Amino acid sequence: MQKTINLNADMGESYGAYTLGKDATMLDIVTSANIACGYHAGDPSVMLETVRLATAKGVSIGAHPAYPDLQGFGRRPLQMAHDDITAMVMYQIGALMGIAASLNVAVSHVKPHGALNNMACKDAGIAQAIARAVHAISPRLILLAPTGSQLYHAGITKNLHTAGEIFADRAYDDEGNLVPRSQPGAVIHDPAQCAAHVLALLDQGLPGQDAGAKATSSIHSVCVHGDTEDAVRISQRVRDVLVAHGYAIQPLPQVLSL
Amino acid sequence: MQKTINLNADMGESYGAYTLGKDATMLDIVTSANIACGYHAGDPSVMLETVRLATAKGVSIGAHPAYPDLQGFGRRPLQMAHDDITAMVMYQIGALMGIAASLNVAVSHVKPHGALNNMACKDAGIAQAIARAVHAISPRLILLAPTGSQLYHAGITKNLHTAGEIFADRAYDDEGNLVPRSQPGAVIHDPAQCAAHVLALLDQGLPGQDAGAKATSSIHSVCVHGDTEDAVRISQRVRDVLVAHGYAIQPLPQVLSL
Amino acid sequence: MQKTINLNADMGESYGAYTLGKDATMLDIVTSANIACGYHAGDPSVMLETVRLATAKGVSIGAHPAYPDLQGFGRRPLQMAHDDITAMVMYQIGALMGIAASLNVAVSHVKPHGALNNMACKDAGIAQAIARAVHAISPRLILLAPTGSQLYHAGITKNLHTAGEIFADRAYDDEGNLVPRSQPGAVIHDPAQCAAHVLALLDQGLPGQDAGAKATSSIHSVCVHGDTEDAVRISQRVRDVLVAHGYAIQPLPQVLSL
Amino acid sequence: MQKTINLNADMGESYGAYTLGKDATMLDIVTSANIACGYHAGDPSVMLETVRLATAKGVSIGAHPAYPDLQGFGRRPLQMAHDDITAMVMYQIGALMGIAASLNVAVSHVKPHGALNNMACKDAGIAQAIARAVHAISPRLILLAPTGSQLYHAGITKNLHTAGEIFADRAYDDEGNLVPRSQPGAVIHDPAQCAAHVLALLDQGLPGQDAGAKATSSIHSVCVHGDTEDAVRISQRVRDVLVAHGYAIQPLPQVLSL
Repeated sequence: MQKTINLNADMGESYGAYTLGKDATMLDIVTSANIACGYHAGDPSVMLETVRLATAKGVSIGAHPAYPDLQGFGRRPLQMAHDDITAMVMYQIGALMGIAASLNVAVSHVKPHGALNNMACKDAGIAQAIARAVHAISPRLILLAPTGSQLYHAGITKNLHTAGEIFADRAYDDEGNLVPRSQPGAVIHDPAQCAAHVLALLDQGLPGQDAGAKATSSIHSVCVHGDTEDAVRISQRVRDVLVAHGYAIQPLPQVLSL
Repeated sequence: MQKTINLNADMGESYGAYTLGKDATMLDIVTSANIACGYHAGDPSVMLETVRLATAKGVSIGAHPAYPDLQGFGRRPLQMAHDDITAMVMYQIGALMGIAASLNVAVSHVKPHGALNNMACKDAGIAQAIARAVHAISPRLILLAPTGSQLYHAGITKNLHTAGEIFADRAYDDEGNLVPRSQPGAVIHDPAQCAAHVLALLDQGLPGQDAGAKATSSIHSVCVHGDTEDAVRISQRVRDVLVAHGYAIQPLPQVLSL
Repeated sequence: MQKTINLNADMGESYGAYTLGKDATMLDIVTSANIACGYHAGDPSVMLETVRLATAKGVSIGAHPAYPDLQGFGRRPLQMAHDDITAMVMYQIGALMGIAASLNVAVSHVKPHGALNNMACKDAGIAQAIARAVHAISPRLILLAPTGSQLYHAGITKNLHTAGEIFADRAYDDEGNLVPRSQPGAVIHDPAQCAAHVLALLDQGLPGQDAGAKATSSIHSVCVHGDTEDAVRISQRVRDVLVAHGYAIQPLPQVLSL
Repeated sequence: MQKTINLNADMGESYGAYTLGKDATMLDIVTSANIACGYHAGDPSVMLETVRLATAKGVSIGAHPAYPDLQGFGRRPLQMAHDDITAMVMYQIGALMGIAASLNVAVSHVKPHGALNNMACKDAGIAQAIARAVHAISPRLILLAPTGSQLYHAGITKNLHTAGEIFADRAYDDEGNLVPRSQPGAVIHDPAQCAAHVLALLDQGLPGQDAGAKATSSIHSVCVHGDTEDAVRISQRVRDVLVAHGYAIQPLPQVLSL
């Protein structure tokens, strides 16, 4: 049986007169798109166009909910009550579902953006607030979360279809945590090195996770970026090397056999 | 067979620390609630709470999409491209659907708010942009529009379930148009007079509409308000008088036999 | 020589169709108004009207800058770069200055709002970012800060006219810090008790501050609230008792002899 | 005596993670910058950086107030009460003044943006609402307006220093009005043609304006753009040709001898 893997990237982050990202190029590389829902980026017209483009390329789509922070691009931690987070995530998922329904496209996954994602990876309360939102809207939605994070575990605990992701261009420490960006070597810039890094992680799992953890922390997706020329090059190389090593690159629902 | 009619009012127009409207009281009077979707009022947490309250009272819910104008409460005309209006309306309907889905509640109608509604009543292009959004999301949604308006006709033309509404506290001229607020007598302030006005309209139809127009312009709902004590009194009186005259006051889907 | 003290309260927190606070009443009680600048509350028209009202009552005005968070009313901690905080505070102070200039009124003080204030009280970096903004716009502006806080000390260090405030309805621990709201007794609800509390603080200084600290941490203002009927009653009582004890209640510039 | 003229362009229209415009390049071409004030574009940090850059290049700065419409980039007509426009314009001018004061730079002019500008050019009420705001903040501010427009005349009537501008890349009809963009030939794309167009207008005045009108409708500035490579080329050519024809290209205050 062929090995399968998903490639995901953030998309639809333009806004009004502002253009951001190389969506058209990235849609030929990745198989799942995390689509901004208007809170950190994206407006309804951009969302509609992005769903149209992704679908035309056979790329599955997911909601990419964020804190309400256009100026900070959703990257600034904001302290919200858990119930407000839940309602806010449901709002954004629903908004994308409305847009997608108009094109007869299903939203198949949810991946929080930026600071909301980072905080949910470390804070079980925030992670559960997000998992509750996803589950309440539809238990058929996939939660896409960094493998082994609190967000990942909240998905598992809530009996959601939970997809684990790794980052192609980020180093992990001995316990399987991302090396903070502030430290040397945290970000990998060389395409070949990124591809080797991904292969190694797929082969051996995240460092420091025992067999039991591995069982519930498998890797279904690789997160790549399209915000710079270099990022696009890395994404393409990761894809090429995965294909060369026998991986079928598929949308998230197929990788999870849904 | 008993005569049926719907009573609708705007709800969920609080926002964060700001409270507006007498929702709890109005939910005992009306049978359908138009719920603000975050663009002119309402935030995700307010929306969730409003859906919960309405459902507990057996009140059907609808999306109340508006121009993105919190400061102007969606009452200020904004010139948008038709495609942007369509996407914006889909976004807001979807957002409410997401919130409602979490409570296993169906969104059954759509009624544009404020300036968006006013402009759609007169401008066929805007009306069609809205009707397209509603239809694209789900042909099962009811479009609630002022009887005989361009918006009403756009709904009919698009084969949407289209519900016609009249206003309890607003006078109509000889051609069935609302008398502009700037003219004397445009707004009816006395509860008894409002109730009589509604009964007369239900009995005789809108002025100046011939039989053919009537056939496609019937009245399914009466719009009432809950933003002031006086408005609540009018709403209650209208309901009481309708009941006394043999009307069953029902949610929109029942009135349209859906 | 008569003892002087200032009373300050937040004002101008309405927004568009949303009304909040009892500004007209409070303007007869306090002598300085902290005016919302559009980020957590207040819109340009509300700001203009509030400056007009305050000035008509002889109340000095200050900018009340906040995080950009209308939904959270500026009460939710947001992590921003210090330089962004500085620019944001300058923007809001300038906006109020523009509005005030149109009425030939001077903005005389700056008091951060909500989460921005709370964070600045504990975090020297944020406090300095705010003090830099105030100083860069005009060294003649008064920084109004909780006595003894990091924000207070940042003002002193920057050579700003720095006014220390205490809270009429909040208990202090033995080291002069506010008792967290989550603890019993943190908030004082009885008007008479609030007034006695204020008198005691004015008499003895904040608990746990030695003579040296006292020298740089004096009390120039008492913060009161106008958001509820109870809060207004407390404010009035505090004013009455202060007057009865021989205090002249004056605008901030007079209390600082500027 | 040497002939003088001003070149102005919009600047500071980036926002958070979104970059727009070739500000650094344009600041070597123009002598006055219209700086976005956060309503259609620009955030406080972008504003601060733009003022810094402009000042370093000897470019005078002006506020570029707009409707509150980030998604529409301030280009969508919005119907606001005149008093709300006045307060909104004062807010934005003040905000830039605050930012600029921190660098000891004076804001010397005001030019409305996008739809606000277009509407003010045709609607005397809106034009006066803007002129009132400028005058109320400081009668020393220059109002920069299309020569001969309602906005221009509102500035003159209010006794403001009023600078008239023409557009380098737009054709005028026989009565001195801009040819609507929807008509062929409305926009001039060739740099040489733009430069010749500007020279002709400076030489002969706007078409259809008699001597009396000319006296109060002179041309002090040429508006150029920096949003595309082509626009930058046009701007550079217009400047070069003006210099070659003996014009001194100066900041607005110098051109008006202030």
